[in-house]
Amino acid sequence: MGLREEIQLMGRQARRASRELAVLPAERKNAILRAMADGLEAGAGRIEEANREDLERGRERGLSAAMLDRLALDGARIRAMAQGVREVAELADPVGEVLAEWDRPNGLRITKVRVPIGVIGIIYESRPNVTSDAAALCFKSGNATILRGGSEAIASNRVIAEVLQAAGASAGLPAHSIQLIGATDRESVRYLAEMDESLDLIVPRGGKGLIETVVSLARMPVIKHYDGICHVYVDAAADLGMAERIVCNAKCQKPGVCNAAETLLVHEAVAERFLSALIPALRSAGVEVRGDERVRGICAEVVAATEEDWATEYLALILSVKVVADVEEAMEHIARYGSRHSDCIVTEDAVAAGRFLAGVDSAAVFWNASTRFNDGGEFGFGCEIGISTDKLHARGPMGLPELTIYKYLVRGTGQVRNGVS
Amino acid sequence: MGLREEIQLMGRQARRASRELAVLPAERKNAILRAMADGLEAGAGRIEEANREDLERGRERGLSAAMLDRLALDGARIRAMAQGVREVAELADPVGEVLAEWDRPNGLRITKVRVPIGVIGIIYESRPNVTSDAAALCFKSGNATILRGGSEAIASNRVIAEVLQAAGASAGLPAHSIQLIGATDRESVRYLAEMDESLDLIVPRGGKGLIETVVSLARMPVIKHYDGICHVYVDAAADLGMAERIVCNAKCQKPGVCNAAETLLVHEAVAERFLSALIPALRSAGVEVRGDERVRGICAEVVAATEEDWATEYLALILSVKVVADVEEAMEHIARYGSRHSDCIVTEDAVAAGRFLAGVDSAAVFWNASTRFNDGGEFGFGCEIGISTDKLHARGPMGLPELTIYKYLVRGTGQVRNGVS
Repeated sequence: MGLREEIQLMGRQARRASRELAVLPAERKNAILRAMADGLEAGAGRIEEANREDLERGRERGLSAAMLDRLALDGARIRAMAQGVREVAELADPVGEVLAEWDRPNGLRITKVRVPIGVIGIIYESRPNVTSDAAALCFKSGNATILRGGSEAIASNRVIAEVLQAAGASAGLPAHSIQLIGATDRESVRYLAEMDESLDLIVPRGGKGLIETVVSLARMPVIKHYDGICHVYVDAAADLGMAERIVCNAKCQKPGVCNAAETLLVHEAVAERFLSALIPALRSAGVEVRGDERVRGICAEVVAATEEDWATEYLALILSVKVVADVEEAMEHIARYGSRHSDCIVTEDAVAAGRFLAGVDSAAVFWNASTRFNDGGEFGFGCEIGISTDKLHARGPMGLPELTIYKYLVRGTGQVRNGVS
Repeated sequence: MGLREEIQLMGRQARRASRELAVLPAERKNAILRAMADGLEAGAGRIEEANREDLERGRERGLSAAMLDRLALDGARIRAMAQGVREVAELADPVGEVLAEWDRPNGLRITKVRVPIGVIGIIYESRPNVTSDAAALCFKSGNATILRGGSEAIASNRVIAEVLQAAGASAGLPAHSIQLIGATDRESVRYLAEMDESLDLIVPRGGKGLIETVVSLARMPVIKHYDGICHVYVDAAADLGMAERIVCNAKCQKPGVCNAAETLLVHEAVAERFLSALIPALRSAGVEVRGDERVRGICAEVVAATEEDWATEYLALILSVKVVADVEEAMEHIARYGSRHSDCIVTEDAVAAGRFLAGVDSAAVFWNASTRFNDGGEFGFGCEIGISTDKLHARGPMGLPELTIYKYLVRGTGQVRNGVS
């Protein structure tokens, strides 16, 4: 059997499993999740052994220290994975929730009820903990999962998937609920992406290149977690002390993530006062500032920002800064260069804030709070599979409910349409 | 300017319009819709003239009588289009609805609010009334629209779009809110489908070939309205009189539509009694019955159903019939051959009904009612843009709320993450 046929078989098996999963009661699912968490801890030795193999191969291939660190698993990280699975067991089961219910004049009763999406493909890169995180979230929401991890972590991923399957099976996990593509051929992404009969959704987790590839190939819906080119706009009526705290937090607290700020927009009325205090503070925190002409007029040492800067997700301690005439110009800039992820206005003026909140088309729009709060945990969702930058189905942090859809149950007493039999 | 550049310009213009549309108050939108409806009636002469041109060309090209009928517009049909637009004005505006609101322990207040999707592309075939239906629904839900109709109706579509734009503009419709691609080149579908910067969603309305093409090309989400291979399962505990009324209605009342039944499954315990009464009734209604071996054992004149029959959407007075051992076998058959559109169980047994409702993964699952009720109007939505067979974002009838998404508004008092500034 070739790889394509193997993956197609996995698809059919997943589809079959999804029917069992859709009607599995919450307590059963939670017991299975706890067994999987125990399995991860019990299998820690085998997982670490496989991980050493991945790390060795990674070193031979010349992976960067940062990449190797993302790849590495030790006892503490495996316990954290197990803990993550236990936390998913504690979350409310979204499946079966009645979203709406109404009666029609002809006596039909219509119930809109939450159901799993079906079969979800997760395509991801180096971090092996995604194997258990994604499997747990998809399983809890009643979906069958086909996982396709990166080649760097393949040995670790294989053992983690085996452990989850074996421990889950001992507690009643339906066969083929969680499958991992063991091959690392690049073609496996293509084969997954063409199986729209078996796969209801693909979620790519990784860099832009991976997402682009999946988008180009996929025949089924893809929920994308693209760049965050996030802005903080400091209005004329801002509390400038608050503005400085928010800008520094949004830029510096964890610069390598999608909800970190990349661009600061400052109202011209406060630009000089605000920036002459802020820029030295940013510099002492190690931030490189790149500014437009007016910013450089205030602080001569600032590097000139190019057109490319406004459209760049640095994921690093670099901040582009622009002076704007008003909230409208700020919103124009965000519409043009932003990525509809997380944008913030700092102001004490409720009217300006209202315009910004209504007019900025981003997954999360903040008023007087750091963009770093666009996060499933910070929103109180308990966990997330990512932060969607799409505008269909799920936007912003994707928790368990976002891994479900609905169907309509229609109960009648023999109704036929137009009374014609 | 080439066609690609022209369509790309339309995309940028639509994106700009969508920002104005997102904040347009409901009363303004309704006034614009009423003006558009009046415009359609006032422009009826011009529309009919253009339509005659389309019909003439259609006759020359040898379009079938059914196709020509779908294409034809007269005074009554134009009044019905205008009436449809007025009905959309009467519907509640989904934009701005607060879907959820909560406070976090750190004092952040999070509001999940309904917003337009943004820019929607509608690609459709012959019927010119889709031009006004789709434009009205997308506009009311705050979206900018790019319409790409079929070449058969291009003259009609152009005039309808002009009339909507001019009448809308007189009442304050933002420029470029509703745009029609005037060219009929096949490439225009490709150009639309690659513009994922400008277009948030494509909804293809038409045959399987059109949908396939769009799915293959599109880089943005597509909501598909595929086949309905709908089933009626008559259980051992069915009221057989009710079952006959439902089967006849689901098959015969309007056989050319997606929610009409294509396959009847009958429990073996009642098969002989039920089918020996039903089949003559179906035949006298002009239905061709194709059955499995057991059905042919009951009624010898029935044509043998092939494997292909079970997977066919006839859209005609043909019904495939199979005898099954129980509700489980019925559900197996539906999972294997169905299209997850509309499926029905007829039974007085609440346990069997409960298993069927939970276990069948279709947009609408019916108990003792005709599958023909899977429809936006019958559900009480007032209108629909189609019946989605997808499992993401929108499933079943798509009304105004399904043309929206949400964003999160997060209001703070200077909160920063992890207290680090």
